[in-house]
Amino acid sequence: MSVRFDVVSIIGVGLLGGSLGLALKARQLARTVLGVGHRQSSLDSALAVKAIDQAFLDLRPGIAEADLIVICTPAALVPSKLDEIRPLCSSRAVATDVASTKAAICAHAAATWPKPLRFVGSHPMAGSEKFGPEHAQPDLYQGYVTIVTSDKDTDPEAHQTVCELWRAVGARVVELDAETHDRIVAQTSHVPHLLAACLAEVVARAGDVSGIVGNGFRDMTRVAAGRSEIWRDICTTNREAILAGLDTLADELARARRLVAENAGEGLETFFRSAQQARRKVLGE
Amino acid sequence: MSVRFDVVSIIGVGLLGGSLGLALKARQLARTVLGVGHRQSSLDSALAVKAIDQAFLDLRPGIAEADLIVICTPAALVPSKLDEIRPLCSSRAVATDVASTKAAICAHAAATWPKPLRFVGSHPMAGSEKFGPEHAQPDLYQGYVTIVTSDKDTDPEAHQTVCELWRAVGARVVELDAETHDRIVAQTSHVPHLLAACLAEVVARAGDVSGIVGNGFRDMTRVAAGRSEIWRDICTTNREAILAGLDTLADELARARRLVAENAGEGLETFFRSAQQARRKVLGE
Repeated sequence: MSVRFDVVSIIGVGLLGGSLGLALKARQLARTVLGVGHRQSSLDSALAVKAIDQAFLDLRPGIAEADLIVICTPAALVPSKLDEIRPLCSSRAVATDVASTKAAICAHAAATWPKPLRFVGSHPMAGSEKFGPEHAQPDLYQGYVTIVTSDKDTDPEAHQTVCELWRAVGARVVELDAETHDRIVAQTSHVPHLLAACLAEVVARAGDVSGIVGNGFRDMTRVAAGRSEIWRDICTTNREAILAGLDTLADELARARRLVAENAGEGLETFFRSAQQARRKVLGE
Repeated sequence: MSVRFDVVSIIGVGLLGGSLGLALKARQLARTVLGVGHRQSSLDSALAVKAIDQAFLDLRPGIAEADLIVICTPAALVPSKLDEIRPLCSSRAVATDVASTKAAICAHAAATWPKPLRFVGSHPMAGSEKFGPEHAQPDLYQGYVTIVTSDKDTDPEAHQTVCELWRAVGARVVELDAETHDRIVAQTSHVPHLLAACLAEVVARAGDVSGIVGNGFRDMTRVAAGRSEIWRDICTTNREAILAGLDTLADELARARRLVAENAGEGLETFFRSAQQARRKVLGE
């Protein structure tokens, strides 16, 4: 399987957009990579690391010639970008995004774009707590899962193109509908993130513990170092699934609290052993 | 500062005890290291990796000649080991332990051992999710904090000896009273562990997610791979502080839930930004 683009436009040249540009160029998957952004400084950084060939503050010239448009803005901005792109892009262009929530975005595209839909949602599960094009790397997607969503109205050719894009930059593609995606990632990623933030907050209130925190705390709160705007948008665009996930977790914490309160040695041992098995199952070990 | 022992007895030759034996021998801090255990197989493994020079299933010959005794059993067994050791050890011997909870153990020693106390509690904050003497390493303590507790009745010379022991194997010593220690580690280590276990459990119930969990989940639940018996003992020996820590965390989670439920964009951004600052403060960054 192979895929080759003439002009790829990346809207939002941060870590994810910049890394995609580097990956496309390193693997010679695009003749030209255009970057579109609203800050000249980010565009300049992306040009400096050669993640893009040309930079545009204006959307129209940045996407008019594109055969692939990848929206790499935070989740909450994707619907308005879809509105802006729709009248400006070629009817043959395929569009996708990289946001961590999919249902609201895909529903917006389904409601506003012509059918069959040439917008296909993507969620590459790669990244780090770093951000900005200066941290972009061509192998960011290598070996990571990218979820690609589809809908009854999706253009099969556009869907195929988006799947091939991610495979071509090294990702393993998993296909899910947008609602299932959002429910699962709420539990595996969004709720854990909120939890990490809560943990960092309460530990900081415990006083000066900087000398005696272990690697456990560092590992458990690493995700809390992520950008606050991105996580704000995730919470507002995946609200229902996150609330359900938080409630499930709160119930489980209450169960653990009861075991501790009752000094239930055997119950606690079973609880910890079961959690070990659960972790192995989740990680596929 | 230097410390040199004639005979060191290590009771319980698992990861921590075995690593201490290797560290003492690698740095020539002891003429002889004796291992005491209740399973011949563990003792044989400790002998095979040269963590100990001689092995004993019987406590009396294993500690009679020791000038330093280090109890490396799980926390719940330390009080009974203190009872067994007291009539058998030399009056000049110094004893310590490596358990993750300190108040119950130190209170037991203070109530049962002669004054001035030659038992001094230790909590080396090193280790990993691996266990057993076969994973022992001479530099396990290098660069990690070891908390050393003391009490108004502690023999100053014994306290000094225990501090020097840990510094000699590469640890950074922090002195705390046992109650403060337990309150802090409940918040920085024990509650996070319970949380990791709860998270592994609820994510496993979300269905087959093995293909799509990210590094965030792996990092956040790593500690849940620890030995269930050890964590059972930690919960039963640090019950009050853990319950208080769980309640603080549950309150913070409820606050985060309200922000999500109210779709409070600005509040969520502030929440995440504050958590980032809190994490940096905790880690001393």
